[in-house]
Amino acid sequence: MVQAYILIQTEVGKASTVAAEIAGLAGVLSAEDVTGPYDVIVRAEADTMDNLGNLVVAQVQNVPGITRTLTCPVVHLS
Amino acid sequence: MVQAYILIQTEVGKASTVAAEIAGLAGVLSAEDVTGPYDVIVRAEADTMDNLGNLVVAQVQNVPGITRTLTCPVVHLS
Amino acid sequence: MVQAYILIQTEVGKASTVAAEIAGLAGVLSAEDVTGPYDVIVRAEADTMDNLGNLVVAQVQNVPGITRTLTCPVVHLS
Amino acid sequence: MVQAYILIQTEVGKASTVAAEIAGLAGVLSAEDVTGPYDVIVRAEADTMDNLGNLVVAQVQNVPGITRTLTCPVVHLS
Amino acid sequence: MVQAYILIQTEVGKASTVAAEIAGLAGVLSAEDVTGPYDVIVRAEADTMDNLGNLVVAQVQNVPGITRTLTCPVVHLS
Amino acid sequence: MVQAYILIQTEVGKASTVAAEIAGLAGVLSAEDVTGPYDVIVRAEADTMDNLGNLVVAQVQNVPGITRTLTCPVVHLS
Amino acid sequence: MVQAYILIQTEVGKASTVAAEIAGLAGVLSAEDVTGPYDVIVRAEADTMDNLGNLVVAQVQNVPGITRTLTCPVVHLS
Amino acid sequence: MVQAYILIQTEVGKASTVAAEIAGLAGVLSAEDVTGPYDVIVRAEADTMDNLGNLVVAQVQNVPGITRTLTCPVVHLS
Repeated sequence: MVQAYILIQTEVGKASTVAAEIAGLAGVLSAEDVTGPYDVIVRAEADTMDNLGNLVVAQVQNVPGITRTLTCPVVHLS
Repeated sequence: MVQAYILIQTEVGKASTVAAEIAGLAGVLSAEDVTGPYDVIVRAEADTMDNLGNLVVAQVQNVPGITRTLTCPVVHLS
Repeated sequence: MVQAYILIQTEVGKASTVAAEIAGLAGVLSAEDVTGPYDVIVRAEADTMDNLGNLVVAQVQNVPGITRTLTCPVVHLS
Repeated sequence: MVQAYILIQTEVGKASTVAAEIAGLAGVLSAEDVTGPYDVIVRAEADTMDNLGNLVVAQVQNVPGITRTLTCPVVHLS
Repeated sequence: MVQAYILIQTEVGKASTVAAEIAGLAGVLSAEDVTGPYDVIVRAEADTMDNLGNLVVAQVQNVPGITRTLTCPVVHLS
Repeated sequence: MVQAYILIQTEVGKASTVAAEIAGLAGVLSAEDVTGPYDVIVRAEADTMDNLGNLVVAQVQNVPGITRTLTCPVVHLS
Repeated sequence: MVQAYILIQTEVGKASTVAAEIAGLAGVLSAEDVTGPYDVIVRAEADTMDNLGNLVVAQVQNVPGITRTLTCPVVHLS
Repeated sequence: MVQAYILIQTEVGKASTVAAEIAGLAGVLSAEDVTGPYDVIVRAEADTMDNLGNLVVAQVQNVPGITRTLTCPVVHLS
């Protein structure tokens, strides 16, 4: 299982609708509006790194109003 | 009361009209054109962090010509 | 209650010890190692924006090995 | 007269002492702690652009704990 | 006299036409295509900081194909 | 011979088609989708620095869906 | 198998020794000096995302002279 | 002949001595202090891209007080 934070920038004025729509996607654990350089922070998970990449491209980035996504995979360091 | 600086990037050529329009919004204390990575720097205040977020989304980001806003809440460190 | 994500950059090689130490702080809900421009992503909460600022400065930034923190307060947009 | 915002990054844990010390400098109008990519935002003024540059280098950057300053001169667009 | 470097990002594929057009503007000393995070670097001068700001907004940013300009005023430190 | 990595940002949802199309261009050695601040990383080569610049501008940037390219020439340090 | 590009910033003057030392690490496919915002670009692979994270933290970041690493995992989009 | 702009960040308070020292190096055409995200902007030239890389690493980066250099080679687009 691969988990990741996805830091999202939206078009101006679109942060709340973007967060609400992403929150309903399969594989998305949470989606919250924030202030600062990013507008929405998402926590998501998938079976593999490739599936995570496809989740972002095929599902998250399809939500209207997103301008940039920055995927930060969680790593368990030993 | 929560205060914040809002660092704004505008479309090319829109800095002065953006600053003038934001300066007239309720909750905005000042709005000035600057050079550098940002085009306009705003000082604003609101009752709560959520209200500040809504001021930025519902009022400031509605001004035509804005491409990115970066909200920096003021904190009083003890 | 104010909640925030804190995006942290660490000295090279310090990510895992930084995450483990922050995870034990009062007010910190989670702290995970990630890859990408940030090394650790923290979720924290405090009573007020000022208390959140003090949590970051007085507690989180005291953990050895941190070079930059970027606090992103969660906002509930209406 | 040239005015500018100076966006400052500090060493971790130094934001409040840096802001307090800068607030006392001649030519500095205000200095406040903020969260986000910058730690302190200063408003300053000087007679000329060169004097503003020297204020930043000779006075502000002498304050211990500063790692980066980003000077954004105010411009009055016609 | 105030001099500045203007670091310019253009739409993809527009760097050479942007540089050529800017090179012909009054107040512009040179305009060259570069690789890296910026696409064109300009050297310009004006009587005052305000005039420099207006040169950038009223002349340089009017050139089609520019997406961001970053003005870096030259300072003579003593 | 000059070689370079080209770090590419694409419009949301366009990363895979951009990578596939760039992979077929003359002078391009590889083009892969990645996560993080960039969406596609390309390795390319050309006879001279100017030809490399023209390869990027004339060929790579013509691929629909690219928003920014960042060319990093390889240098052989002695 | 997970592959990644690792974009590395080094202390000034350390790029060539850092690249040479990383090139000899197990799991590293190539390591080249570049100009631009990064100093060395590495291609590496590991069995899992966690092992890739550990390779970066336990091996790459142990090389003296590195100040920041930015890991960009390759994803195969369908 | 390859020409480049080198955008330099210095330790706080070191901008003017860095610019003065770089101005005396062979291959350096100019070196000026600026405000904004960079502290010194240099124009340099060398016979080849590799020699330019070596000029930066072996000469410019040897100047005390430099923390980051960003080399932007000039390209002549046809």
